[in-house]
Amino acid sequence: MRLTNFSDYALRMLMYAASAGDRLITIEETARTFKVSKTHLNKVANTLTRGGYLKAVRGRSGGLVLRLRPEMIRIGDVIRLTEPDFAVVECFATGNQCVLTGSCKLSSMFGEAIASFQSILDRYTLADVALMPQDFLGRLSTPQASSVARSRG
Amino acid sequence: MRLTNFSDYALRMLMYAASAGDRLITIEETARTFKVSKTHLNKVANTLTRGGYLKAVRGRSGGLVLRLRPEMIRIGDVIRLTEPDFAVVECFATGNQCVLTGSCKLSSMFGEAIASFQSILDRYTLADVALMPQDFLGRLSTPQASSVARSRG
Repeated sequence: MRLTNFSDYALRMLMYAASAGDRLITIEETARTFKVSKTHLNKVANTLTRGGYLKAVRGRSGGLVLRLRPEMIRIGDVIRLTEPDFAVVECFATGNQCVLTGSCKLSSMFGEAIASFQSILDRYTLADVALMPQDFLGRLSTPQASSVARSRG
Repeated sequence: MRLTNFSDYALRMLMYAASAGDRLITIEETARTFKVSKTHLNKVANTLTRGGYLKAVRGRSGGLVLRLRPEMIRIGDVIRLTEPDFAVVECFATGNQCVLTGSCKLSSMFGEAIASFQSILDRYTLADVALMPQDFLGRLSTPQASSVARSRG
């Protein structure tokens, strides 16, 4: 059972933005921190911006910042935004061709299991899973990080 | 969020075997019923046989039959057998390279959500989701099905 990488990266991007506080983060810097593709993160950032979680500040020194306080961002809501579906079995998916559809009892059982999975994520906010800027140290290669690293050295 | 087709087919195969009762089912017949690949179902049948859920009877008129009563087969156990992992985020997967591993708080949250998903499936047995042989009618193209279909008018 897996979530998409898209959801995984969306959560990491929000965690990174939360740790940055009011400082604008860039896609480039986030991609470097997590060693993931910039193209992929561009799409993630677009979805999170359209979804109302990030605010994009345009311009040369532009970047991204959380639009809401971390404690206002429910993890369950983020996952519902970023997952294309919760098609744990074929009958939950578009283009379902399972011959049992209609008589099958799996769908209500899996519906209940998915609801239970989501209800746990709904109990957590970004504030519960947020990290401190220093948790990204040694991974971040921006001047800011290096200077924090030096000051902690 | 998705389960593998492998798990989906495993559940369908067990449901089909349950509906057949003592009658031996074949992979060919099951593949025809669900319109899925025989090769794929072969692997599914091997896993279910090795896992103790199906008994393979060799020989010309051989086939597969449930080894346990449907009420003894917990859906949660079947899924744990058939899913390669529950790696909803990278840090749950083999070859995890996420830079936050160790400090991240997502893993305990997702661990709780997965446990909750599985605990729902553990409340159901194959008996709860089993269908009657006639639920497969009109989909099954074996002589048995045709004769049942005729006798039902």
